Amino acid sequence: MQAVNIGILGLGTVGGGTAQVLQDNAAEISKRLGREVRVTAVCTSNANRAKELCPQAAVVSEPTDLVTREDVDIVVELYGGTGVAKEVVLQAIGNGKHIVTANKKLLAEYGNEIFELAEQKNVMVYFEAAVAGGIPIIKTLREGLAANRIHSIAGIINGTSNFILSEMREKGAAFADVLAQAQKLGYAEADPTFDIEGHDAGHKITIMSALAFGTPVNFGACYLEGISKLDSRDIKYAEELGYRIKLLGITRCTEKGIELRVHPTLLPESRLLANVNGVMNAVRVKADMVGETMYYGAGAGSLPTASAVVADIIDICRNIGAGQDNRVPHLSFQSSQVKPQKFLTIDEITSSYYLRVQAADEAGVLGKIATLLAEQGVSIEALIQKGVLDCTHAEIVILTHSTVEKNIKNAIAAIEQQAFVSEKVTMIRMESLHG
Amino acid sequence: MQAVNIGILGLGTVGGGTAQVLQDNAAEISKRLGREVRVTAVCTSNANRAKELCPQAAVVSEPTDLVTREDVDIVVELYGGTGVAKEVVLQAIGNGKHIVTANKKLLAEYGNEIFELAEQKNVMVYFEAAVAGGIPIIKTLREGLAANRIHSIAGIINGTSNFILSEMREKGAAFADVLAQAQKLGYAEADPTFDIEGHDAGHKITIMSALAFGTPVNFGACYLEGISKLDSRDIKYAEELGYRIKLLGITRCTEKGIELRVHPTLLPESRLLANVNGVMNAVRVKADMVGETMYYGAGAGSLPTASAVVADIIDICRNIGAGQDNRVPHLSFQSSQVKPQKFLTIDEITSSYYLRVQAADEAGVLGKIATLLAEQGVSIEALIQKGVLDCTHAEIVILTHSTVEKNIKNAIAAIEQQAFVSEKVTMIRMESLHG
Repeated sequence: MQAVNIGILGLGTVGGGTAQVLQDNAAEISKRLGREVRVTAVCTSNANRAKELCPQAAVVSEPTDLVTREDVDIVVELYGGTGVAKEVVLQAIGNGKHIVTANKKLLAEYGNEIFELAEQKNVMVYFEAAVAGGIPIIKTLREGLAANRIHSIAGIINGTSNFILSEMREKGAAFADVLAQAQKLGYAEADPTFDIEGHDAGHKITIMSALAFGTPVNFGACYLEGISKLDSRDIKYAEELGYRIKLLGITRCTEKGIELRVHPTLLPESRLLANVNGVMNAVRVKADMVGETMYYGAGAGSLPTASAVVADIIDICRNIGAGQDNRVPHLSFQSSQVKPQKFLTIDEITSSYYLRVQAADEAGVLGKIATLLAEQGVSIEALIQKGVLDCTHAEIVILTHSTVEKNIKNAIAAIEQQAFVSEKVTMIRMESLHG
Repeated sequence: MQAVNIGILGLGTVGGGTAQVLQDNAAEISKRLGREVRVTAVCTSNANRAKELCPQAAVVSEPTDLVTREDVDIVVELYGGTGVAKEVVLQAIGNGKHIVTANKKLLAEYGNEIFELAEQKNVMVYFEAAVAGGIPIIKTLREGLAANRIHSIAGIINGTSNFILSEMREKGAAFADVLAQAQKLGYAEADPTFDIEGHDAGHKITIMSALAFGTPVNFGACYLEGISKLDSRDIKYAEELGYRIKLLGITRCTEKGIELRVHPTLLPESRLLANVNGVMNAVRVKADMVGETMYYGAGAGSLPTASAVVADIIDICRNIGAGQDNRVPHLSFQSSQVKPQKFLTIDEITSSYYLRVQAADEAGVLGKIATLLAEQGVSIEALIQKGVLDCTHAEIVILTHSTVEKNIKNAIAAIEQQAFVSEKVTMIRMESLHG
């Protein structure tokens, strides 16, 4: 069979990895695929790097010159972001090119527009690398679990944050110190906002939510809360109670609507997900027939991400020529079946909670807090006085049973109005991962 | 698009589950697939069960009457075993029917013959349910990781054995007691040989080995050692040293040949795989580009296994009519590229080892044992005297570094010849899961 021609936009970390995988494993890939995959063009300003990584490819400096080439069947977009990347992806689709992209931001924010145009133009947009790096979670959601109604997804899908939280726990270190270390190791960017404030995880869980529940991508509905305000004390207290704190992306289909949220979360230490450490990612999927499954691997890095990019290239090659352009619908469901659904605001979600209250060390305080929680219908699983901080103040840690978030917030507001409370109450959501 | 017609051979646990998934999730499935999947015929001697589970389907009592029907596009074989199942699968293929099967034994022992006929007849044989139940590991190996050279696979792929080992560890119970409990709970068969002696895991790792390395299936090359002779003392000692014992299926591509083996294995407790408990399964794959990934879920049970069967049905439906009968080759590599390779005997594999020696409690014993190991080139990671058993005998536990198995067996033979050794030496293989 004829070779398939690839054009790569961007030869950075993932672009370089993609070129390397296609070159180093060319024989292995064509033994599987039955045809050759070759890079015919790259777009980069670094001609030397291009010559080194893809000696046979034409080098162009303008993306438009790549996406209009006759000798490019599949455009691999690795610019990231939504500026040039969006423009050039739409232009490539307009020219009838298939797309492989690792760009979670682009798809979480403009996926609906992109997939619609792709369908009109009968091209495929594949994006395995956009979520959880090398873990084949998109294929799993769209194909492997296609017989199921998916109930919920919970994932550790930002390696930077997971590295920081793992280090904070192991070393009892403060957030700022571990962040500085992560930056030194290259695990965090100079401006780490995107990773540590949950934006990156939000893009990824938004994409998975759409695939799971048959809705358009809806990043606007995603609640984002990062790890930068986490106190290492809470990590320590959580551990004493048998929990680990992880930054999770969570999406769940409930009778009231879809939950879509990113935030630090207490998990029982006995759960596998609680034991995923360092920069590794893992996604736990709960579905009606298969029950609980989990997928673990490297969520970032040049070669793991390139593994996903090249798997997509191979998948597209298998469809090309067979009139199979819509073999697996972009958003898992036939586009006529992808329908807007109600998303819950963060106040409407249901969760259990960890609270830490700093209060005067005097008689009646525990009883009063318990009463204020009960008045909002919040029942308590555990209430522990963590010792006296100075001569006059104590820390109280409370684990609640499941409740609607509005209730816990009302209870916290009431607690904070008490004269014996000296600081804002710390609240962290908690998941048993049973449902 | 036209509905796709399914014929089910066998309405037992998995057959019943398959009928249920297709019925309960019919809407969800056709929203994804864009066409209807319907069960048009079932083969069972229990007509009442058939009427209940598949009210619309024709009921036949002879398999040959099902596989020759005009109104059956895909035959789902859920008989198990290699007698009737083999005959009827070959007949169905001969009649141009696509096959979905959960039959690991059939494929591990006769897969080469079956896949060859399927290719001649331009039909697809899908078998996601044959390995690790609901976990989409076949799709992952054939598609998700298609850009990689796979180095090794290690899996907890027999739920019965994993349940027994988990209980033995948690409760310090003896093998026979836990087996009886597992039988009472329905986790073990009346004749448990197939599960506890490693045959089932052997069939599964044989199939994965072929997919990973591009060889024909070669069950004859698979070393099988079960858990029935495991002493709960060794589970306890392993735990004291920071290890768990799991029944693993392992296959690894080395320069000397392919390792293919099933046996109890010590794993460092920090590894995720060591923390997979109860009847759950997990498969860890190490590959050149993506690095380490792991896949976790229910390895058996009616609905989880049916989830995999129906995912295969959906996959085949996506190919039917598109001339895509060989979209993904059966054994992952193009059949012209599937070539016999050298498999290593168990004496040729490389591993590290746990040894337990029962010896007279006298001076010089530890030194003599260390010397006998050194003479075979085996170096010691740890050597611990586990206390005196009675007034005259002590137990010595040794962890070795990596060595060729022949060497450790020679060393054990030499140790057992010593007058101070009172019993056969216990040997259990050990994996760091770093490579």
